[in-house]
Amino acid sequence: MPFTYNRTVHFQDTDAAGVVYFANVLGICHEAYEESLETSGINIKGFFSNSSVAFPIVHASVDFLRPMFCGDKLVISLMPQKLGIDKFEIAYEISVGDMVVAKAITRHVCIEVSSRSKQELPDEIIRWLETNRRDAEGAERRKSREIM
Amino acid sequence: MPFTYNRTVHFQDTDAAGVVYFANVLGICHEAYEESLETSGINIKGFFSNSSVAFPIVHASVDFLRPMFCGDKLVISLMPQKLGIDKFEIAYEISVGDMVVAKAITRHVCIEVSSRSKQELPDEIIRWLETNRRDAEGAERRKSREIM
Amino acid sequence: MPFTYNRTVHFQDTDAAGVVYFANVLGICHEAYEESLETSGINIKGFFSNSSVAFPIVHASVDFLRPMFCGDKLVISLMPQKLGIDKFEIAYEISVGDMVVAKAITRHVCIEVSSRSKQELPDEIIRWLETNRRDAEGAERRKSREIM
Amino acid sequence: MPFTYNRTVHFQDTDAAGVVYFANVLGICHEAYEESLETSGINIKGFFSNSSVAFPIVHASVDFLRPMFCGDKLVISLMPQKLGIDKFEIAYEISVGDMVVAKAITRHVCIEVSSRSKQELPDEIIRWLETNRRDAEGAERRKSREIM
Repeated sequence: MPFTYNRTVHFQDTDAAGVVYFANVLGICHEAYEESLETSGINIKGFFSNSSVAFPIVHASVDFLRPMFCGDKLVISLMPQKLGIDKFEIAYEISVGDMVVAKAITRHVCIEVSSRSKQELPDEIIRWLETNRRDAEGAERRKSREIM
Repeated sequence: MPFTYNRTVHFQDTDAAGVVYFANVLGICHEAYEESLETSGINIKGFFSNSSVAFPIVHASVDFLRPMFCGDKLVISLMPQKLGIDKFEIAYEISVGDMVVAKAITRHVCIEVSSRSKQELPDEIIRWLETNRRDAEGAERRKSREIM
Repeated sequence: MPFTYNRTVHFQDTDAAGVVYFANVLGICHEAYEESLETSGINIKGFFSNSSVAFPIVHASVDFLRPMFCGDKLVISLMPQKLGIDKFEIAYEISVGDMVVAKAITRHVCIEVSSRSKQELPDEIIRWLETNRRDAEGAERRKSREIM
Repeated sequence: MPFTYNRTVHFQDTDAAGVVYFANVLGICHEAYEESLETSGINIKGFFSNSSVAFPIVHASVDFLRPMFCGDKLVISLMPQKLGIDKFEIAYEISVGDMVVAKAITRHVCIEVSSRSKQELPDEIIRWLETNRRDAEGAERRKSREIM
């Protein structure tokens, strides 16, 4: 099973059109990424602030299939993938009940913070990528079997 | 026991000083308020968007005792109090472990949305106020007993 | 010349990595869109809240070329394009001085709010699209001439 | 005249109740503070991120007098005051046209960042406090004269 993160839509996430403000959906995906890292044993505080290595997002995209409302119970599933020795990508799927309401991608590169030069992914991220990929593949296999 | 809401500090909550951006602490308190309402059976989506009655905040204040960092496990306790037939106040206390890191207050008035004129608190809010007050008082009594 | 929007990076836009939080860049692009609409004579308050017609974003993407810091003077240029009778797209380019620091796209569909069914773009949006397209084409032509 | 900051209400500032989300008003006040510092010649990027001295907010409060809507043209006036050798306070007044719509206060202490211990206000902040206080007093005097 891919890693999933549960998140209720807060009032602050919404805008005057009565639904979640579009850019906030990417913020919610990032929360799922943080929780997934933490679940795999990574110290979030160090990872995101005091480290010599960082993983800035170089690309993000999001497709909105249905509006999300205050109080909606979102389930965000997360599937990361290694793209090279110094980069990875995460695919997110956001559902409410049986409905997929949005899909997103974030692409990250690994840099050495002071010089901002690219650098190989460290072991803890390699492990996180492998654990979550394997899990996601397991889910894919299970899904194909159910279809057959 | 007063109602409590658990909330991990997200990366998005922080600013370039490395700690939670001050105004975001009030947003986190509002999340606790939303969860408390939902726990008492109130439909959040209707409550915050499609209703003829609303409870806008007319005053808010917050004291910051210690900085909050990405990944910190916040526990927000919430103690609402009726202030009159058309208003109530909520006191929040935010802790990390044994430490109180912030305290806040929001004051709400009940209005009829289209005219924005004041209006008596509806039954579901009266019930929510009573339940949470009683609980909070229970906690106070228990605390005094422990001290004696 | 394409429409441009000037925006200083606020402290609140940043995160604990010391740079603008990725999803906030899309929010800044949306500000440019709002200002462009207003400049063309559209009433923003009505457009975004009290209308029977809305233009929700169905897709957004953003590429980050360089980090943005608190106090940076961003210039966002905006180039909208009609994609069909009921949709349009906006391309944004964000610069600091001579450097392009990010590029983004938002894609919008026109809907009738109560039914959420697709609907033809209204005249005021058609006019906005034509004005800004013409301006952008003028800029393109001027640019080619300068190159030749 | 006190320092003033002009700010249009963005769509992102609003919530599903159709007005500015309460905590965002404090964020808008902080923008006024940043612009005021910059106007007095302080480098904002250094001030808010790379410095050994910081000015965290220890208290904030806000009163909401009228709702603010998307597209509203806010004028935020800012009146700082020294409270001691290591602290100051800023009073904000937010208006739309002739109407005051909100009032807020932020209280700041000066700390040495690595130890987080209190420290005397540096010269550039003393100068900023004096300039803005004098200006505000000028405005007060002019106001009294007009009344008489």
